[in-house]
Amino acid sequence: LSGSEDQVISSSPTIGVFDSGFGGLTVLRALVARAPQARYAFIGDTARLPYGSKSSRTIARYAAQSARFLVEEQGADYLVIACNTASALALDAIKEAVPSSVSVIGVIEPGAEAAHRASKTKDVLVIATDATVQSHAYAAACRARGLRAFEKACPLLVPLVEEGWNNHPVTTEVLRIYFEELVNQASSQGLKPDTLVLGCTHYPLLRPLIEQIIASDIKIIDSAESTADKLVCYLSHDLGAPPEPTIDAPSIRCYATDSVEKFERLGSRFLGRPTGKVELVDLGG
Amino acid sequence: LSGSEDQVISSSPTIGVFDSGFGGLTVLRALVARAPQARYAFIGDTARLPYGSKSSRTIARYAAQSARFLVEEQGADYLVIACNTASALALDAIKEAVPSSVSVIGVIEPGAEAAHRASKTKDVLVIATDATVQSHAYAAACRARGLRAFEKACPLLVPLVEEGWNNHPVTTEVLRIYFEELVNQASSQGLKPDTLVLGCTHYPLLRPLIEQIIASDIKIIDSAESTADKLVCYLSHDLGAPPEPTIDAPSIRCYATDSVEKFERLGSRFLGRPTGKVELVDLGG
Repeated sequence: LSGSEDQVISSSPTIGVFDSGFGGLTVLRALVARAPQARYAFIGDTARLPYGSKSSRTIARYAAQSARFLVEEQGADYLVIACNTASALALDAIKEAVPSSVSVIGVIEPGAEAAHRASKTKDVLVIATDATVQSHAYAAACRARGLRAFEKACPLLVPLVEEGWNNHPVTTEVLRIYFEELVNQASSQGLKPDTLVLGCTHYPLLRPLIEQIIASDIKIIDSAESTADKLVCYLSHDLGAPPEPTIDAPSIRCYATDSVEKFERLGSRFLGRPTGKVELVDLGG
Repeated sequence: LSGSEDQVISSSPTIGVFDSGFGGLTVLRALVARAPQARYAFIGDTARLPYGSKSSRTIARYAAQSARFLVEEQGADYLVIACNTASALALDAIKEAVPSSVSVIGVIEPGAEAAHRASKTKDVLVIATDATVQSHAYAAACRARGLRAFEKACPLLVPLVEEGWNNHPVTTEVLRIYFEELVNQASSQGLKPDTLVLGCTHYPLLRPLIEQIIASDIKIIDSAESTADKLVCYLSHDLGAPPEPTIDAPSIRCYATDSVEKFERLGSRFLGRPTGKVELVDLGG
């Protein structure tokens, strides 16, 4: 854990959370549930989303700007990259953009680690956006742990969540179609999966429906939860003790790089509480 | 028609077509069907889509860059803004960014004009993306012609088209739900609509399904078709005769500002023929 020995971390550290949009608020929600005493600054680079269609060089440049904003202007001691695309393509660039004393956590490695712990057959399924699947970042992280991963892009799920159809017959039907294809394709390749990774920050809102549809012997791994678990592990290492939950209202400030309307309108569903006023920031470029 | 008298337009003029993505290829398709002898240059500003979440100042800046690329580097005599958001928010900025000899046509005014010609009750329905509905550009263009317009955002339709589910039971069900809400909401406001405007460049691909679902006495206006009709009207004015269709393969060059993979993969469905190699261009900023 870089820098942890030569730096005193406040017992109420600041955790910077970054996403290209507001889906990463599900990660922030999981963080706040585990470490409510920390201060949180969340930035959604809404001016430049979606990252999925952009080149890795462009994504690295954008993500580094947001990372510097969180560290230099918000005083973040930890950075959580709550964006699958940026975690897949820009984690090293983000680490280089901030002082080595700042711990940087992406969402992909913790998801793969949790899948490794959960799976007995060592065959796992991953659902994600088109961009995340094309990066094959989950497959690589799984392979590094001796897992075989079968990835499937589910591009309709994000718009269904954003339409608010989290518990809607159409969404049930779309999930049923996607899972039928997923299971058939995986088994045609000889896999016997017992674990499903939710590889997109929007998908935790569909977990109740997914649990109804997927076979009951398949364990569900939520990357948002796994990432928050890892951050808590870092915190307890650096602070010498697990964070002590308090009952006060948590300190959360949200920023966006363009139009905040959709962020404020939909964000509370992802965060599980009101986002408060979302402040507009200009990162240049 | 600015500049038409003091400028000689080649009998094979160059028509620049601009969109934030590749949906505007449905407009290009309608143009090519009507004026196959023209040369076409299409640019999709895929590095910076979607425009819908961005401020009008930012959109105007981006759109002006694409417009200048089409005029200065591709020699466009006409510009078609095949993007509802840019047509709604940046048409004046685009006109200012190019010489006054270049005619600039957006998609909204032609759609509203066609609705005005088609509607007897003078009440029309408009379906579009969230961003277009929030701009109320169709409502304003309709009101200017004495029409009452009821607009509805249908955010799932673009992802359904991009998933390739143009003729799928889920899409039928989503359309059924949207149209039920649309008709109920419009009639609760006392409207008696007889015309439906497809206010998004993706929607022409859903026209066969929409025709099955919507009441048979409602006329469907496709903004792409209306915009192409208007361009042909300009061409025949400037050339002194309607363009003469040829049977040769049309001259079409496509450009994008970032990752061309999705453009090449999905674009041919929108264009109705292969897009050919999509060239990457850097507009800066």
